[in-house]
Amino acid sequence: MESTRFEQQMQFIIEIDKLKNILRKTKLIDGTRYENDAEHTWHLMIMAVTLLEHANSKELNLLKVIRMLMIHDIVEIDAGDTFAYDNKGREDKREREEKAAARIFGLLPEDQRDACLELWNEFEDRTTDESKYAAALDRLQPLLFNYHNQGETWKKHGITSERVTAFNQHIGEGSEVLWEYAKDLIDQALDKGYITSSKDAATI
Amino acid sequence: MESTRFEQQMQFIIEIDKLKNILRKTKLIDGTRYENDAEHTWHLMIMAVTLLEHANSKELNLLKVIRMLMIHDIVEIDAGDTFAYDNKGREDKREREEKAAARIFGLLPEDQRDACLELWNEFEDRTTDESKYAAALDRLQPLLFNYHNQGETWKKHGITSERVTAFNQHIGEGSEVLWEYAKDLIDQALDKGYITSSKDAATI
Repeated sequence: MESTRFEQQMQFIIEIDKLKNILRKTKLIDGTRYENDAEHTWHLMIMAVTLLEHANSKELNLLKVIRMLMIHDIVEIDAGDTFAYDNKGREDKREREEKAAARIFGLLPEDQRDACLELWNEFEDRTTDESKYAAALDRLQPLLFNYHNQGETWKKHGITSERVTAFNQHIGEGSEVLWEYAKDLIDQALDKGYITSSKDAATI
Repeated sequence: MESTRFEQQMQFIIEIDKLKNILRKTKLIDGTRYENDAEHTWHLMIMAVTLLEHANSKELNLLKVIRMLMIHDIVEIDAGDTFAYDNKGREDKREREEKAAARIFGLLPEDQRDACLELWNEFEDRTTDESKYAAALDRLQPLLFNYHNQGETWKKHGITSERVTAFNQHIGEGSEVLWEYAKDLIDQALDKGYITSSKDAATI
């Protein structure tokens, strides 16, 4: 028996509950536990509203930004969270995630599936103003958390300030203001010893 | 020294991370742990988009619904989660939450604080089409979860199907379709023994 449109929508809503069990590599600001993808996504959406005036583009479609963020990590239910600094894991990231997108968004009625796939691809491609701003928030948030919990993830994985700077510099494509702020956080993290520089390593 | 507008925004963004540690009385669909307010909120926002066509009103402002949902539980950082069936706790709920709203939204620049307070009051008052639909989702989601984890919360607190029906009937004000679905879930929960009826108790 074919599912009705409503049943398909409910199946999707039930399936995505699993996003709450996908843990990221970043701990909460209080450092007590790892953050999961669902609560991370909520935080990004509220940042999108609060920080909108700092986006480079002054004509953003806010609803589109929010809809893009809302679903941007759902593929990780199948593909898992790929650590930002895991170069090997990132090689086949897109392929794994595309398969996941097809399965999970495929639970929805066709028109809603297509809308989700389009938004998800737009977010990943980062060519539009909306996706550049959304991606900037997605990079700024873990940086902010790592700073506030004194660089736990950076220390654990031996990530240098140079790698953090290189990986996050596209924040500036979405918001120059947020990129200035992010660079200042990285500098402060260096001063406070939350992160090391590859230059330090060279002099030891 | 007075905080700049940007500093105020960042203070708010950092403060609300605490919502991830406010636990609700409902477990996830897989029953493994209690849900927190932040991930609950994410789920409601995606339900708002997915189920929009089932709202009673065909002229909803979706962005407003989402912005309302986004912040609707933030007051619980100070006021805690008041259990739906805790009649005593609900007596001073609004008072405790208003104080919390003033403090937490008060971290934002004035214009953003006022916008949040207005949206939060609209959600609580449930007189507009947007707030009726948002509130319907906020009631449907825990009902759906309780059904799928076989009524754990209902059993634990001895909640009858009559109380669940009475408490959730305003779902119909936001969406008749979702209220029909909710009533069907309650009936099925009774059939499967996930919940008891006060009529059963009377005959024992």
